[in-house]
Amino acid sequence: MRVLLALGGNAMTSADGGARPEDQIRAAGIAMRSVAELVARDVDVVITHGNGPQVGNLLVKNELAASVVPPVPLDWCGAQTQATLGFVLMDCLEAELARRGVVRRAAAVVTRTRVDAHDPGFVKPTKPIGRYLSQDEAALLIDHGETWEHRGDKGWRRVVASPEPLEILDAAAVAALVDAGFIVIANGGGGIPVVRDEDGALHGVEAVIDKDLGAALLARTVDADVLVIATDVSNAVLHYGTPEAQPIERVSVQGLRSLAGEGHFASGSMGPKVDAACRFVERGGTYAVISNLDNIIDAVAGKSGTVVVNE
Amino acid sequence: MRVLLALGGNAMTSADGGARPEDQIRAAGIAMRSVAELVARDVDVVITHGNGPQVGNLLVKNELAASVVPPVPLDWCGAQTQATLGFVLMDCLEAELARRGVVRRAAAVVTRTRVDAHDPGFVKPTKPIGRYLSQDEAALLIDHGETWEHRGDKGWRRVVASPEPLEILDAAAVAALVDAGFIVIANGGGGIPVVRDEDGALHGVEAVIDKDLGAALLARTVDADVLVIATDVSNAVLHYGTPEAQPIERVSVQGLRSLAGEGHFASGSMGPKVDAACRFVERGGTYAVISNLDNIIDAVAGKSGTVVVNE
Repeated sequence: MRVLLALGGNAMTSADGGARPEDQIRAAGIAMRSVAELVARDVDVVITHGNGPQVGNLLVKNELAASVVPPVPLDWCGAQTQATLGFVLMDCLEAELARRGVVRRAAAVVTRTRVDAHDPGFVKPTKPIGRYLSQDEAALLIDHGETWEHRGDKGWRRVVASPEPLEILDAAAVAALVDAGFIVIANGGGGIPVVRDEDGALHGVEAVIDKDLGAALLARTVDADVLVIATDVSNAVLHYGTPEAQPIERVSVQGLRSLAGEGHFASGSMGPKVDAACRFVERGGTYAVISNLDNIIDAVAGKSGTVVVNE
Repeated sequence: MRVLLALGGNAMTSADGGARPEDQIRAAGIAMRSVAELVARDVDVVITHGNGPQVGNLLVKNELAASVVPPVPLDWCGAQTQATLGFVLMDCLEAELARRGVVRRAAAVVTRTRVDAHDPGFVKPTKPIGRYLSQDEAALLIDHGETWEHRGDKGWRRVVASPEPLEILDAAAVAALVDAGFIVIANGGGGIPVVRDEDGALHGVEAVIDKDLGAALLARTVDADVLVIATDVSNAVLHYGTPEAQPIERVSVQGLRSLAGEGHFASGSMGPKVDAACRFVERGGTYAVISNLDNIIDAVAGKSGTVVVNE
């Protein structure tokens, strides 16, 4: 059985959201224990990961050092997190595997994902990223061409395009390594967003791809049977945050689509996870699971979390 | 024929040393033209690259944002450049290949290189990196545990360990992709330096591996026939910078070792290139070439640059 495991970017920070290198290493160690348990049970795992807190830090560095060194665009920030989280996850996973006497190697692939230069997100960006600033601070960055929005009491926040992922450009490299027996870490942060020019050349664009939608696409490309979206709650929930809250367990893709249509899932958090799970099953995946990492063994078996099936 | 091509970090900046993203993309485009020419002639190329100017910029960002976001260690900075240069080189190379009608894919691998935790460099660091600071500014960073040295009129500069590369830990992933037909970009900046704990676990360390020594090691691991070290001069030179200056053309590894012993090659620049070229040939490589990129076709054929042979 082959599983595509999507880890939240928050799963690689400390409980209080700290994203110091030591926080990320410690959290990665905990996540990789779960993965090593799976691998020890002969599950073939491909890993992808979010990078929100990490990219947030890089944007602050860009901003505060801009008078001395040139800032790098958002696609470069995403790329940077693929390598830092990639090597930290490899280190942690290999240690956990060795502890269990499992002889498997990890590999981390720099992964680009193609998006459409005419994606509506580039005209009307909607994805909030990075830290909150005051109106005056935001105004300076708006003058530099960025889009910032007033987000209530917390202040102003940058919004960027979150375009639809169309093609994992480095999927063939990922597949070659999976076939050669590696546990591959790929498409971090949903992939480095690139567009194809009219003359066929690729180049990066300032955007953030949803990592779960990227995971759904990668999962099909590497022939995963199961997509597991690991998050900080045990299930998708109906009437979330109300007295009628009710965790969703086994559900058909049609049923889950209906619930999504009724507005049960927040657009910035559970919404894209539900969408990604549905897409994976609609495109031929056996089932998709939304679960926390603590229950990963049962989740992969379809016995825990929100299990989305095609019935 | 398989060639390991080592590109200098300065080869990915503008002529005046600018390392803005657009400078790096433009310079990478020029370098990848040469590589595409090689690939079009059926040469199998594996690429590695330096990252000095790029890491220098990341260190400044670390420093200037330290009061707001946590700095990341030097191994993380090196990792970051593997992904940014990795995807930019892939984009540029694929565009140049497409222009020539060559159907080959590129892949970039996050690559760790094992070093010895007891390497003398960790006790007495010698490799200067990053920007120059005043004595007062350096004093602050010395208080934080860094080593800074007075380097004459330019001011103070940080020095770090440059440990001997012992093993390319991700060489198997690189080899699997090379065997599958990919043009692989790997071991950027000499590899992310990691040490193995007593209990077998790996973790990153604050160091910078010489990218040419890393290249010599990678070249043997991927069974390269030829190592080409691309730099900004056409040859290694005897009596460099004097009226007796004389470019070295074809030379035996024993002869070049003798010249190195006589002190012809500066320790921070040509010295490690000469050492890397010698190591590659001593370990069974067919020949190594030190050349600029302009002459790459002839260099690969052993007809230009300083050609080091085992005779």
